[in-house]
Amino acid sequence: MSLPRKLAAEALGTALLLAVVIGSGIMGERLAGGNVAIALLANTLATVGGLYVLIEVFGPVSGAHFNPAVSAVLAWRGALPVNALAPYIASQLVGAVLGAWLAHAMFDMTIVQFSTKLRTGTGQWIAEAVATAGLVLVILRAPAGRGAAMVACYIGAAYWFTASTSFANPAAVFGRMFSDSFAGIAPTSAPGFVVAQGAGAALAVLIHRLLGADAPSREAAPV
Amino acid sequence: MSLPRKLAAEALGTALLLAVVIGSGIMGERLAGGNVAIALLANTLATVGGLYVLIEVFGPVSGAHFNPAVSAVLAWRGALPVNALAPYIASQLVGAVLGAWLAHAMFDMTIVQFSTKLRTGTGQWIAEAVATAGLVLVILRAPAGRGAAMVACYIGAAYWFTASTSFANPAAVFGRMFSDSFAGIAPTSAPGFVVAQGAGAALAVLIHRLLGADAPSREAAPV
Amino acid sequence: MSLPRKLAAEALGTALLLAVVIGSGIMGERLAGGNVAIALLANTLATVGGLYVLIEVFGPVSGAHFNPAVSAVLAWRGALPVNALAPYIASQLVGAVLGAWLAHAMFDMTIVQFSTKLRTGTGQWIAEAVATAGLVLVILRAPAGRGAAMVACYIGAAYWFTASTSFANPAAVFGRMFSDSFAGIAPTSAPGFVVAQGAGAALAVLIHRLLGADAPSREAAPV
Amino acid sequence: MSLPRKLAAEALGTALLLAVVIGSGIMGERLAGGNVAIALLANTLATVGGLYVLIEVFGPVSGAHFNPAVSAVLAWRGALPVNALAPYIASQLVGAVLGAWLAHAMFDMTIVQFSTKLRTGTGQWIAEAVATAGLVLVILRAPAGRGAAMVACYIGAAYWFTASTSFANPAAVFGRMFSDSFAGIAPTSAPGFVVAQGAGAALAVLIHRLLGADAPSREAAPV
Repeated sequence: MSLPRKLAAEALGTALLLAVVIGSGIMGERLAGGNVAIALLANTLATVGGLYVLIEVFGPVSGAHFNPAVSAVLAWRGALPVNALAPYIASQLVGAVLGAWLAHAMFDMTIVQFSTKLRTGTGQWIAEAVATAGLVLVILRAPAGRGAAMVACYIGAAYWFTASTSFANPAAVFGRMFSDSFAGIAPTSAPGFVVAQGAGAALAVLIHRLLGADAPSREAAPV
Repeated sequence: MSLPRKLAAEALGTALLLAVVIGSGIMGERLAGGNVAIALLANTLATVGGLYVLIEVFGPVSGAHFNPAVSAVLAWRGALPVNALAPYIASQLVGAVLGAWLAHAMFDMTIVQFSTKLRTGTGQWIAEAVATAGLVLVILRAPAGRGAAMVACYIGAAYWFTASTSFANPAAVFGRMFSDSFAGIAPTSAPGFVVAQGAGAALAVLIHRLLGADAPSREAAPV
Repeated sequence: MSLPRKLAAEALGTALLLAVVIGSGIMGERLAGGNVAIALLANTLATVGGLYVLIEVFGPVSGAHFNPAVSAVLAWRGALPVNALAPYIASQLVGAVLGAWLAHAMFDMTIVQFSTKLRTGTGQWIAEAVATAGLVLVILRAPAGRGAAMVACYIGAAYWFTASTSFANPAAVFGRMFSDSFAGIAPTSAPGFVVAQGAGAALAVLIHRLLGADAPSREAAPV
Repeated sequence: MSLPRKLAAEALGTALLLAVVIGSGIMGERLAGGNVAIALLANTLATVGGLYVLIEVFGPVSGAHFNPAVSAVLAWRGALPVNALAPYIASQLVGAVLGAWLAHAMFDMTIVQFSTKLRTGTGQWIAEAVATAGLVLVILRAPAGRGAAMVACYIGAAYWFTASTSFANPAAVFGRMFSDSFAGIAPTSAPGFVVAQGAGAALAVLIHRLLGADAPSREAAPV
């Protein structure tokens, strides 16, 4: 599979992931009559189903990272060529914004907008570190053939058990900055989230070593 | 498997799919006390479970298309004999109406009725194109043995992330025209949905080529 | 596996199935604050999860029928010895009542009670026939290794798309008669449900033949 | 795999399990606007997804017990070395408290606190015995490769069909004592729960023998 195809897959997959996350957040909030838990339940179920399908569909092409933190960890461990890292991340960031705009187009909203939702504080940052550590650990240790389902289930749980609803993905932070809706994050809150996610990803690598490498690992596979 | 058996499977499967979609919409709306999000959550879960089971049950017989857009794409790619396309579509349309009527019979409603729910506008049409493109892409690229689960999960997500609740199926549009209930669509809104779905299906074929054909594909299999 | 062990498995499995159905109905109704859709959502999710696990656990022992209609169909097709049919059904009925009583004990309710909830009328009976036909069809045609998940998903969908919330099981009717709670059915309504279920099971056998037997089938296996 | 690695896995896995259970309970209660059923639905879905992933991730390292009752049964049956039992249980208890504290840190709550929620009475104790018996039976009889999904589905059902919301785990009782939130339990209520769980585990071993050992069993495997 050529690099341009991989990059197209990362851009398209990340776009669809953000369209799922932001679109279902908009739909959930519109229909839930003010009950935020019901809106987040809908947002969760859509994300779980969509993420599972996107990883299965794009995994054989690009690895279905959709996430700069995941790409960075896999590059560092030799599962992604180092010179592919920057193009991967660029594709993910572009895709994320396009996905937000696609969601706005579907819901008849202004295409270009910015979130005003502040998400900040120690609890939020701990939550993002935990959320990202868990995600990376799942990716590094999922048995063959179960990675897609496990990542989707993990994110579904993390929407609720982390105080930040688990962005766990710098590209998701970037795309959500462009949506003043349920799933959005104000640009001023973005750096804190990304730093916490980086710390979480590093923590996952440490834990992965601590637990030993004789468990099944996806590292050799493209996903 | 003979063609009449395949057509019976397409008619019966599409009928049951519409009975699931329309029936669970009626039940959800009756019980949800006016909270549309709760009604749509119930509608979603029933559709996901029912669609998964229907594809597994009827897949070995007819391919479990239940959808003229899917049959057209598969015929165009050589996975369905071209002379079977018209009978497939006719069976799906007849089944869809019978399924709507079955739902009405179960819920003690007037059997023959027409929807008055307008579903129109640019956002809705973009949503249907996106919904159908995603569905066709999933069908073309699902790994062997996972197609049923992936289609069901995809539709569950698309109920929420697309502004139209993802009909993604001209036969579903046709059947829902015959139900003045939660899942219905006014006949005047139907053509716009079907045109958008056709555009989405064509887009999916383009994306499938762009991503390359060395990924696992269901094209050779009946489903 | 000896017959007494099979009968113990049918009794225990049916008891736990009824405890799941009735117990989660009680819990759902107590917590849902009058929103019946939320109570039924909880009842649905508990039933889907519980049914899946019970079939996987008891399937290798007794086939995990838990349902006289299923046992009758399998006996008629030669997959259950005919002289085991009556003991199977007796075990299921005894288990169903014990399961209702176990639910009452857990929720500090009067152990012995009878439902006063009328469930009657043409729509309800059509719904039970459809629900049972679908269940039996799924059991006769599920691919090897997927029967448990498919039955669970099917019942989850049928809780919502059938007007009767899909009892689809004469033993479930029997056990639910003994519970004046969310999942109960008045004894006077029971015969209509059971007759409709028998008609649905017969319909499923006809459809199974119509669709041909070259599809994967569970008939040769104990489940 | 060395014992210290196994103990680290049990401690970390149990910590994350408690963080999931307590964290999602806090989030559910905060967002649900007073509707306890909606809060418990969110708590359930997060627990199901998180538990599935944790068992898949830590299973190959330590067996992913996260539960002294499970470790005791497996030690008694020879699947865990007897001299590993006490260290396993100690790791689980320490992990449980750390998990509660991690949840509090993420939600900006006082780290060290104790629950005031009384959970007592015959119904609650029967419920815990039933919940634990079911869990141990699932673990002893799950087919190879399905244990993680089955345990997760079982617990999801048991949150609703048992009157106690199914703690089914002395380490979960211990950790939840340290959280005055949705999922908490007052220390004075803890002994009754643990005794009931022990009785349930013993009952499961009896039922497992009654049903025969020629069913698939996880006993030989580490999980």
